[in-house]
Amino acid sequence: MTKTTDNVELGKEMSAKLAVELIEDGMIVGLGTGSTAKIAIDLLGQRVAQGLRIKAVATSKASFDQGLKLGIDVLDINDVAEVDVTIDGADRVDRSTRTLIKGLGGALLREKIVASISHSLIIIVDERKITDKLGVDCPIPVEVTQFGYVTTKAKLRDLGGEPVLRRTANEAPFVTDGGNYILDCQFGLIKDPAGMEASINQVIGVIESGLFVGMDPRVIVGTATTAFEL
Amino acid sequence: MTKTTDNVELGKEMSAKLAVELIEDGMIVGLGTGSTAKIAIDLLGQRVAQGLRIKAVATSKASFDQGLKLGIDVLDINDVAEVDVTIDGADRVDRSTRTLIKGLGGALLREKIVASISHSLIIIVDERKITDKLGVDCPIPVEVTQFGYVTTKAKLRDLGGEPVLRRTANEAPFVTDGGNYILDCQFGLIKDPAGMEASINQVIGVIESGLFVGMDPRVIVGTATTAFEL
Repeated sequence: MTKTTDNVELGKEMSAKLAVELIEDGMIVGLGTGSTAKIAIDLLGQRVAQGLRIKAVATSKASFDQGLKLGIDVLDINDVAEVDVTIDGADRVDRSTRTLIKGLGGALLREKIVASISHSLIIIVDERKITDKLGVDCPIPVEVTQFGYVTTKAKLRDLGGEPVLRRTANEAPFVTDGGNYILDCQFGLIKDPAGMEASINQVIGVIESGLFVGMDPRVIVGTATTAFEL
Repeated sequence: MTKTTDNVELGKEMSAKLAVELIEDGMIVGLGTGSTAKIAIDLLGQRVAQGLRIKAVATSKASFDQGLKLGIDVLDINDVAEVDVTIDGADRVDRSTRTLIKGLGGALLREKIVASISHSLIIIVDERKITDKLGVDCPIPVEVTQFGYVTTKAKLRDLGGEPVLRRTANEAPFVTDGGNYILDCQFGLIKDPAGMEASINQVIGVIESGLFVGMDPRVIVGTATTAFEL
């Protein structure tokens, strides 16, 4: 490991650790998806093993399985009306508005649904994810139906994006837990996140975008040595 | 059959017949879904058997299979950039704006995708479907992800709807071709269809609604004795 990846890993751990300390007995907790959320779920499992009593819902099959394996009581999302706290990662966080780009891990739809019913959304990230120029170095992942995705792609291009079908290592299209495709759309600097989110949602064939606007998350940033709230 | 159902059936046939006469050699034709579209596909199959050369795309597995069986060259939607003419039914047509409510047949998402890439959309209906009070006697079908549909339902209720999960004859939830659920949402009189469509689309968990706004369809209305354009 280079020094940089070391520091990135330490940052992820620092932020996850601080977030998991905020969880209390009796809460329903949303389990995020991705490498940083994975660390948080592991730490949460340790606390449960030590006696913390919580229930959880998961934002992906991977996180569902990980939670179960750790002895966390993971419920079916449709048996839950609301969630107390969700801990999840993000690919980018806009420093001033805390608008998020999520979904490079492929779970944006379920992450957004769980976030939307959470009283508190805690986003855990390493320093690299904080930006003053949202969109410049990170595409917006857009989940779309397989049916007609070629024309959906053309419509997103008409909106000013440069959509690329996400593929797996073996070049097959990546398929989400919901059975859909993801188009990673490079839009450049996003000046009006709310307007862009609405425009993307209006495109027929789009299920959801990875732009998380107005969710007022708490953002915990981890460095090699500490974690702090943005 | 009572006189009324007789007349309804005749009306469907009359409208389908007039629509299918508009199809010409070389066209790519969108095949709708539902009882009236089914009649049109049968008639189209007859014309193909008589020498009409077309290609087609289908808005449902049922229509895809029906077309193939009739010898129509039905293509994969992702191999088609645009469609010349789509012939489809509707559950309600607003007389003045030609806004449509579609989806009681369960194929709204694929119907909307195909309609959105069609140069011409021909809607074939019997007289009962024409209304001056859109929404009053017909819910808006809304396709939603299975994941979190209970909370999506609550959000649609917050928008002023009365959502009911669609079920099959044996009481199991109805599942669309895309693997999703449908919430039939009674909103009452729809005064601002474009605004309502946008509001519904903004709900996290919603894939698409059955409100078709601004698609400028040709509407062919069938009666027991004739068919005419609205």
